[in-house]
Amino acid sequence: MTLRHFLTTQDYSRAEIDALLEHAAAFKRSPRSQQLAGKSVALLFFNPSMRTRTSFELGAFHLGGHAIVLAPGKDAWPIEFEVGSVMDGDTEEHIAEVARVLSRYVDLIAVRAFPKFQDWQVDRQDTVIKAFAQYATVPVINMETITHPCQELAHALAMKEHLGSLQNKKYVLTWTYHPKPLNTAVANSALLIATKMGMDVTLLCPTPDYVLDERYMQAGFENAQANGGSLKVSHDIEEAYSGAHVVYAKSWGALPYFGRWEQEKPIREANKHFIVDEAKMALTDHGLFSHCLPLRRNVKATDAVMDAPYCIAIDEAENRLHVQKAVMASLIGQG
Amino acid sequence: MTLRHFLTTQDYSRAEIDALLEHAAAFKRSPRSQQLAGKSVALLFFNPSMRTRTSFELGAFHLGGHAIVLAPGKDAWPIEFEVGSVMDGDTEEHIAEVARVLSRYVDLIAVRAFPKFQDWQVDRQDTVIKAFAQYATVPVINMETITHPCQELAHALAMKEHLGSLQNKKYVLTWTYHPKPLNTAVANSALLIATKMGMDVTLLCPTPDYVLDERYMQAGFENAQANGGSLKVSHDIEEAYSGAHVVYAKSWGALPYFGRWEQEKPIREANKHFIVDEAKMALTDHGLFSHCLPLRRNVKATDAVMDAPYCIAIDEAENRLHVQKAVMASLIGQG
Amino acid sequence: MTLRHFLTTQDYSRAEIDALLEHAAAFKRSPRSQQLAGKSVALLFFNPSMRTRTSFELGAFHLGGHAIVLAPGKDAWPIEFEVGSVMDGDTEEHIAEVARVLSRYVDLIAVRAFPKFQDWQVDRQDTVIKAFAQYATVPVINMETITHPCQELAHALAMKEHLGSLQNKKYVLTWTYHPKPLNTAVANSALLIATKMGMDVTLLCPTPDYVLDERYMQAGFENAQANGGSLKVSHDIEEAYSGAHVVYAKSWGALPYFGRWEQEKPIREANKHFIVDEAKMALTDHGLFSHCLPLRRNVKATDAVMDAPYCIAIDEAENRLHVQKAVMASLIGQG
Repeated sequence: MTLRHFLTTQDYSRAEIDALLEHAAAFKRSPRSQQLAGKSVALLFFNPSMRTRTSFELGAFHLGGHAIVLAPGKDAWPIEFEVGSVMDGDTEEHIAEVARVLSRYVDLIAVRAFPKFQDWQVDRQDTVIKAFAQYATVPVINMETITHPCQELAHALAMKEHLGSLQNKKYVLTWTYHPKPLNTAVANSALLIATKMGMDVTLLCPTPDYVLDERYMQAGFENAQANGGSLKVSHDIEEAYSGAHVVYAKSWGALPYFGRWEQEKPIREANKHFIVDEAKMALTDHGLFSHCLPLRRNVKATDAVMDAPYCIAIDEAENRLHVQKAVMASLIGQG
Repeated sequence: MTLRHFLTTQDYSRAEIDALLEHAAAFKRSPRSQQLAGKSVALLFFNPSMRTRTSFELGAFHLGGHAIVLAPGKDAWPIEFEVGSVMDGDTEEHIAEVARVLSRYVDLIAVRAFPKFQDWQVDRQDTVIKAFAQYATVPVINMETITHPCQELAHALAMKEHLGSLQNKKYVLTWTYHPKPLNTAVANSALLIATKMGMDVTLLCPTPDYVLDERYMQAGFENAQANGGSLKVSHDIEEAYSGAHVVYAKSWGALPYFGRWEQEKPIREANKHFIVDEAKMALTDHGLFSHCLPLRRNVKATDAVMDAPYCIAIDEAENRLHVQKAVMASLIGQG
Repeated sequence: MTLRHFLTTQDYSRAEIDALLEHAAAFKRSPRSQQLAGKSVALLFFNPSMRTRTSFELGAFHLGGHAIVLAPGKDAWPIEFEVGSVMDGDTEEHIAEVARVLSRYVDLIAVRAFPKFQDWQVDRQDTVIKAFAQYATVPVINMETITHPCQELAHALAMKEHLGSLQNKKYVLTWTYHPKPLNTAVANSALLIATKMGMDVTLLCPTPDYVLDERYMQAGFENAQANGGSLKVSHDIEEAYSGAHVVYAKSWGALPYFGRWEQEKPIREANKHFIVDEAKMALTDHGLFSHCLPLRRNVKATDAVMDAPYCIAIDEAENRLHVQKAVMASLIGQG
């Protein structure tokens, strides 16, 4: 029997995603159970976290289990991921041992590992989490690498809570300014889940440089086709917002400038007007606004938008707790 | 219904404080219960901690709950506290989102946030914890900011255990030397709780520069009047110790020199003789000695004092566990 | 009644060690119990950890208890260990208070404190854990200082699982190269436990400079005599591996060069051929290989050895969990 992981929603059918969302909704109504009684999950953070850490740790507790929080390279050893490497540098332990030993201790391994932001051809291989999935003998959960599938589920659940069916609802994923180039993970994930839910998706960004990796664009087109929705790219703010039911904001670095961020900086800075504000939201069809958080107020979205009743970012953040419990319970149920 | 926080003992009546102390004494006799079963508390440490962290985490466990430990800016995002700020600097997330999201996850939020020691007019506004209390939709607990109310309760309980009634017992809060200027929080708190318990309080310090902020001096005078005690300032070591029932030591920075610590240094260093030693303790009426810990031995108090039977600092530290359980149980009970 | 700690296996009789191993084997078959229900253990890490932290934290959870993880000097105060010290330097709190306060909060205190690698005459006094044992009023557990007794038990259990009786089995502790000088703790411990189990032990190292501290050599000889085994030193790789039943690898710094590591470096680097490889393992009598981990692949042992069926390092690592539960349960049982 093949071990099932939760690395990307693309490994899950639409029906399986729907089932996870229903399970999550049930946990939202009734938070406590014993589905992880005596079980444990290791949370490995190669990058910091607040929401992810809190919601996973709490989720395990609600289900009778226990989360162990580890920060490799900080309060644990730096890890080697290359196969066959002569380990005479900084790394003290190979992923083969890390994953195998953790698999003896815990029942689930969750990993956060952001790109290094030097070379997208390297980063897009998603080496860290794939190595965990390869060597672990327990299920592995993606807590954000180059996609963020837990965020996807939380986002989908929040939209369904407010809109009911998402079929052919107009969904805008808008790029926004941020002083630093950021991970494309949540943007990739937004494309994947919105198309999977059959929404009519517009990717709004300042220039073609901000279009996402072809792997996710292609998956988005295929999802759209399979689920009766659509996907297009736009650089026209007014057209994109017009009639939208959901506006989802995210900043990310332009892939053609990956590792040469100084050259991208003037482009980013010329597009601060992509900020989500009340004027833009007024173009929508009573649209909802959301964001994965953390969000820089008055940079990505204005105070007025963040504090508006149509902002569901807090609901989405809350849903992280519920969907992750559904994911953990579902993966444990394999055993 | 207004949400009740635990930000300062001044928000609690004498009867409420007495009830918390009785509840704490009961937890000391019988540590375990299920009053926080399935509940959780987020412990946010903007500054490090050992006793506070351990006693809160353990307190939650004893009551069937779970504590999540977060260090914003270290293993979580740096937080913005200004309203309306354009967040294009270092902070990644606004307190509005942090507090609202945490409130969806946990049932209590506890915060430690020391002053920045640059400008007392800024620090005395206690911005961080006030912002949490403003935006959170669950009760907020002060784990030390510019006062330290949990320490107050632990201290009061330890005194009552050894003295019974505290009414009109002579209480000396003595400044001591420390190589660095320290937070006035515990000194402010000592004034508040000792006067609230109706004690006859002497604030002993080298010069008028070390008198505490007028807010706490004023509250101390009012507490004394309301509870039949007294409050005075003294710079005379012998007079202050004479006949004392309790000596409480603390070092703190002089407010007039706030942010100009190099100028205060010679004053502090000229007053190393404020150390608590056996000769001074011999002037008391079989007085108890205590300190909030951590304490630099042979700088703030001698080994002989720390190891004497009249030193109740360890009891006070233990009581942190019991009083915090009482505080958490009482705040959860609101729901 | 004297409080019993777990500082070194030398404080435990062979019969007591055997009983701990049987208890551990029982926990391996049936992981959960309530032997620590409502109890807690403080895990103090003066140095980082993954396996130790995870296995202790999880062990406490499995037994119904709770582990508090503290990193003094990082998320807790720096601690003073000198008696009578005038604490006007960096340390903020004396071990007397740290140990006494923790003893009021928790039921067990576990400590990891590596040598400072400046002066072996200082390090060999094992000041930190001895101070905890002196001042604590609850049992203290060694999580690795200059020995690593928890690793010893895990190692012994793994060997017994694969070999049955260990009596007079040939055991080789081989030094290996590592780019940095490392702690002798696991090497000292390997000598202690292998001789205690009555094995025929060869300490294999490049030169007499790598022989271990006389305290552990002497204890090894005494253990061997008491338990019908033997202990010898060899610098001959072929002789040492020949007919071995167990090869245990570890790198460590040469004591005569302690604190003058630049001078040892050429010696270490001249002995990279001590790496454990298939050719050497072929000399053994179907020998097992193990290592305490973390292990630098292709530096201390080759990929082929690490991935071979005779490598039991993962079993040994797993056993940390089981033996530590046995140790905690046994120490708590004193009360």
